[in-house]
Amino acid sequence: MSRFWSPVVHTLTPYTPGEQPKITNLIKLNTNENPYGPSPKAIAAMQAAVNDHLRLYPDPNGDVLKDAVAAFHQADGITRANVFVGNSSDEVLAHTFQALLKHDKPLLFPDISYSFYPVYCGLYGIEYRTVPLTAEFEINTADYSGGGAIIFPNPNAPTGILLPLAHIETLLQTYPDQILVVDEAYVDFGGVSAISLVNRYDNLLVVQTLSKSRSLAGARVGFAVGHADLIAGLERVKNSFNSYPLDRVALAGAVAAIEDTGYFNQTCAAINASRDTLSKELRQLGFDVLPSHANFVFARHPERDAAQLAQALRERAILVRHFKLPRIEQFLRISIGTDAECEALVAALTAILQ
Amino acid sequence: MSRFWSPVVHTLTPYTPGEQPKITNLIKLNTNENPYGPSPKAIAAMQAAVNDHLRLYPDPNGDVLKDAVAAFHQADGITRANVFVGNSSDEVLAHTFQALLKHDKPLLFPDISYSFYPVYCGLYGIEYRTVPLTAEFEINTADYSGGGAIIFPNPNAPTGILLPLAHIETLLQTYPDQILVVDEAYVDFGGVSAISLVNRYDNLLVVQTLSKSRSLAGARVGFAVGHADLIAGLERVKNSFNSYPLDRVALAGAVAAIEDTGYFNQTCAAINASRDTLSKELRQLGFDVLPSHANFVFARHPERDAAQLAQALRERAILVRHFKLPRIEQFLRISIGTDAECEALVAALTAILQ
Repeated sequence: MSRFWSPVVHTLTPYTPGEQPKITNLIKLNTNENPYGPSPKAIAAMQAAVNDHLRLYPDPNGDVLKDAVAAFHQADGITRANVFVGNSSDEVLAHTFQALLKHDKPLLFPDISYSFYPVYCGLYGIEYRTVPLTAEFEINTADYSGGGAIIFPNPNAPTGILLPLAHIETLLQTYPDQILVVDEAYVDFGGVSAISLVNRYDNLLVVQTLSKSRSLAGARVGFAVGHADLIAGLERVKNSFNSYPLDRVALAGAVAAIEDTGYFNQTCAAINASRDTLSKELRQLGFDVLPSHANFVFARHPERDAAQLAQALRERAILVRHFKLPRIEQFLRISIGTDAECEALVAALTAILQ
Repeated sequence: MSRFWSPVVHTLTPYTPGEQPKITNLIKLNTNENPYGPSPKAIAAMQAAVNDHLRLYPDPNGDVLKDAVAAFHQADGITRANVFVGNSSDEVLAHTFQALLKHDKPLLFPDISYSFYPVYCGLYGIEYRTVPLTAEFEINTADYSGGGAIIFPNPNAPTGILLPLAHIETLLQTYPDQILVVDEAYVDFGGVSAISLVNRYDNLLVVQTLSKSRSLAGARVGFAVGHADLIAGLERVKNSFNSYPLDRVALAGAVAAIEDTGYFNQTCAAINASRDTLSKELRQLGFDVLPSHANFVFARHPERDAAQLAQALRERAILVRHFKLPRIEQFLRISIGTDAECEALVAALTAILQ
């Protein structure tokens, strides 16, 4: 506490990210990192960008990255003017909350979703209302009337459950006066992106990250795709906050990672296969496993306390994520590791459950 | 314009950074970049950090960098708890405005200073009042009563004029109920940092960047040093905005750059010498040159229009910065380049003035 704090600071409850332990030799399945390294082409591009040009500012607009994103989604008619880039999708989301989600009516999001959303609302004084997921942890599109805007992750976090594209379109058509932000951090692991709808709906913004499917969590790059007028609003806020959010090395790596579609498809497919195997094995151990389209599974054991299971795993040097939150406090969120890591997890759980 | 913009977006006047042209072979003296590359040790550290660990999130707290900053200022009793780090000093300043500068009384800053300050005020709804510099473009400490907080660059931008440390201390003592933020982007070029006062005044926050004296504009790293309670306020805002603002490569380079004091001292001394030579040569050409303690000079020619001079230099492939702002519209801000670049500038001006 300090008398020099602005009033809002006293009211904040900051987000708590998953633990980033400084000890090694842990099996780290707690922050949904990719078990495979970045594209070798991204590594090479970043190494080439580490040179004396670092004395110079980067392009404040990150146009090379905007162009790479647009090219990747060329079939959907995406151009540079439809793309916003930032220092991780968390920064992109922060600007989105400030630029696009503060209206007279409350922002709506599911009661179970990314726990950063209420934090952003606190930071920017945005009124919000949570909308309960169904008993099966699904989004019911009929429940989203009466708000000023809607946001949710798809697949949802931490459930991993995917809302089909047709339901996204239903939301866009049913609530044309609400902007819909679809946070697609995990969409590349078997989901279908709503970017294909951007050119037909002026009330859609899609947010993605390079931290998961492009294995660049350590480089901090995210982006948003939407109608050019929405992007212009984000640019106004960004240019009132930090002119150059993306450094030269991150820009180079992000472009190369997006362009290397072969590596991207191969690693995503490997993770999806590991997830399906792990889901099956967890069910064999008696877990209820929600149907995941993400690089994690969300599972509960009907007879074991989730916090105790997480602790028991921790004692075996395996980290998973446990949220002490209503409705999900008996679940564990387990990131998909390499096959060896998944096998170690299953072996540890087998021992713990005996 | 979009009906989906939050109301504040319509009111913003974003900051305009200096031009980052995509054509090469320009002599670029418009954004105060360092003419020398980063420390070779920083380059090596960044190259080593470009590896498969980029799949993992960085340390959200950036503790290695906090510790490097603390160690650099060890003689002043600075510890990790006194240090805040961010994705450039612009981000650090943005969080500072939101976390520490919104009070019932207006924020005070000089009428001539970093033109991003009123932009931040617009973004966060902070009332401000500008305080005129003296006729000699100096800060008069007696003029800063009645505000809720004070901020200015020291040396000031774009004048380059240094306020002596004793005057900073006068401000801290005279206005103990106002937080004073000293933005020391340019302090390493002959100024004296106020970090030595941090442990004696709980109302002081010092902000620095690695973009200028550490030649890392392309890596986006800044930090603040102040009382632990002020830092805690900044952390609350940062952790409500983006958990991991600094990527793995930038962290590695920043630490190595701060630790390489030999290279730092040598390049700063070279720039100071070039600045003093350039100032002398500009005066010989008839310019009024303000006494600079920064890596730029601020100069006007009594008989030539500054905008026309900037345009004439541009036609000779030399970029300098011209601000169309009251009191300074007849000045040019000229970054200190290599000696060869400074000589080319002087030759071009000699030709233009003939």
